[in-house]
Amino acid sequence: MRVVITGAGGFVGSALLQRLATSGRLSPNTPQISELVAVDSVVSGGPEGAVILEGDIRDASVQQRIAEKPCDVIFHLAAVPGGAAARDYDLGWSVNVEATAALFAAVAAQDNPARLVFSSSIGVFGVPLPKDRVDDATLPLPTMSYGAQKLMMEILLADYARRGLIDGIAVRLPGIIARPRQPGGHLSAYMSDILHALAAGEKFTCPVSRTAASWFMSRRRCVDNLVHAATASAEALGDRRCFNLPALHLTMDELVEGVVEHFGPSVRDLVDYAPDATLEAQFGAYPPIETAIADAAGFVHDGAAADLVSRALDLESTKTANTGAVA
Amino acid sequence: MRVVITGAGGFVGSALLQRLATSGRLSPNTPQISELVAVDSVVSGGPEGAVILEGDIRDASVQQRIAEKPCDVIFHLAAVPGGAAARDYDLGWSVNVEATAALFAAVAAQDNPARLVFSSSIGVFGVPLPKDRVDDATLPLPTMSYGAQKLMMEILLADYARRGLIDGIAVRLPGIIARPRQPGGHLSAYMSDILHALAAGEKFTCPVSRTAASWFMSRRRCVDNLVHAATASAEALGDRRCFNLPALHLTMDELVEGVVEHFGPSVRDLVDYAPDATLEAQFGAYPPIETAIADAAGFVHDGAAADLVSRALDLESTKTANTGAVA
Repeated sequence: MRVVITGAGGFVGSALLQRLATSGRLSPNTPQISELVAVDSVVSGGPEGAVILEGDIRDASVQQRIAEKPCDVIFHLAAVPGGAAARDYDLGWSVNVEATAALFAAVAAQDNPARLVFSSSIGVFGVPLPKDRVDDATLPLPTMSYGAQKLMMEILLADYARRGLIDGIAVRLPGIIARPRQPGGHLSAYMSDILHALAAGEKFTCPVSRTAASWFMSRRRCVDNLVHAATASAEALGDRRCFNLPALHLTMDELVEGVVEHFGPSVRDLVDYAPDATLEAQFGAYPPIETAIADAAGFVHDGAAADLVSRALDLESTKTANTGAVA
Repeated sequence: MRVVITGAGGFVGSALLQRLATSGRLSPNTPQISELVAVDSVVSGGPEGAVILEGDIRDASVQQRIAEKPCDVIFHLAAVPGGAAARDYDLGWSVNVEATAALFAAVAAQDNPARLVFSSSIGVFGVPLPKDRVDDATLPLPTMSYGAQKLMMEILLADYARRGLIDGIAVRLPGIIARPRQPGGHLSAYMSDILHALAAGEKFTCPVSRTAASWFMSRRRCVDNLVHAATASAEALGDRRCFNLPALHLTMDELVEGVVEHFGPSVRDLVDYAPDATLEAQFGAYPPIETAIADAAGFVHDGAAADLVSRALDLESTKTANTGAVA
């Protein structure tokens, strides 16, 4: 079984790469991975046994090496994220659309359709979001180029799937935490930074209000779900191949309470709130999310705030038991 | 005022070209058209005064000539239609996506945002359609590559509009009638052929059932709406720049009754029905359509079956009065 990960040097990709290199297979029921190809501009600390393919996903030579042998599973995670895609439109377009469409075309050309897992984003929904809820029937109306680009590629992937050329699935990821504290293209960095700060006993000024509600998923749970997307049967997935993943819907207060369960009540005093209007509007007004399609297909969220925090910070154990379908 | 029409040799484009060449302006309230550029591979019988630009919309030189001077209004109608885009995927992709995206980029680069009217399609909705109705909140789930491609370009155009680089508007056209009786890429040719046959007193075997319900618009009314899209104020249009146009929701029986009003009851005996399962599923199960956004912005359908038939066949007068906002 040949497995390819693009964006393998990224926050989610590196964790997925590590997981697959360690286990040697996608799930107990799937064959051994014979070749694990990790694609990114830089794949630092790539695990032993993986084929590291460093280069620009936009380069024909890189695309060619990805497709030089048939893929059984390809995780296409490489992307220019929201903030960066807004600052440099051409860069975002070339990676998020042109290189992605080229990759789909290359994968579609192989004889047996590959399972292609595409990391889309809740950024396909613009702001303001519907006030009552988001569900599988919610019309995506992007208000960022990043979201528009992800949505276009969802549609293209669904068309390839309908034509039987790619066994494609696009999962819309919510905010994945906890990203390392470093400058990045992500406007939602504060969702991760608050956890790192509180875990380190540092004060944190939150740029959204304490009642700002967002959708969260830990990186570990995200990797669980990506692997599930790669292994779920066509019957379990059904016809809609682009959908929202389950996510925890939490206010910042509720997230902080999840930290309290691990680090004690004193962390409450470390947080003060100085809402930024733009961030509040972009990330702080998420309604409840209903994910019937993903639920039926066996995808799961983190269960509870404390579990989210535990997985997000790679704490040794979770406080509460939570055994989801893909746990 | 410089106005460009791509697809100007096509069924809708040629009528739009003729309309604008004759009137010399988009509406009584807009300036004289100083240059009217008609782009297509062939523009036969192009009216005097128009600049005929024959070539392939995919050629950089053609794109360059379109954008060599700033456009005030551009109608982008050039497309590979549904049946043809399914038969030749690469052709559809290159015209419906690549050339369209290149055109958008060229138009976006001019200093003052041009009003760009993009003819999208109800093909963005796959089949089966929702049973109760389609409205502005209906999630498009294309089941033809043509619809997927139109939808992707809607999303791209909306993103350019949001960024303030193109004053874009995408209107989803229903079945436009009455196309000339000739082989074409349109699977829905029967919607037009039945009118030509009955008007000529010929028998017609209808490939969908008498109760097959579809959405219809006459070519003349379509041109009315395209011109309205080019001239409506930003205030009238609002934020949602991609939407469904009003259309008459008629069964084939009701359409035939529209013909009866012009040609008498004997035409009923000319029709027999031999439904084709594929056509019936693709075109014959359209629910009512509610178009609140388009209605508010002043777009209109044909009013009644007899008016539809009259405009579709270019009969001299309509049987019933119907003065819509753009009539």
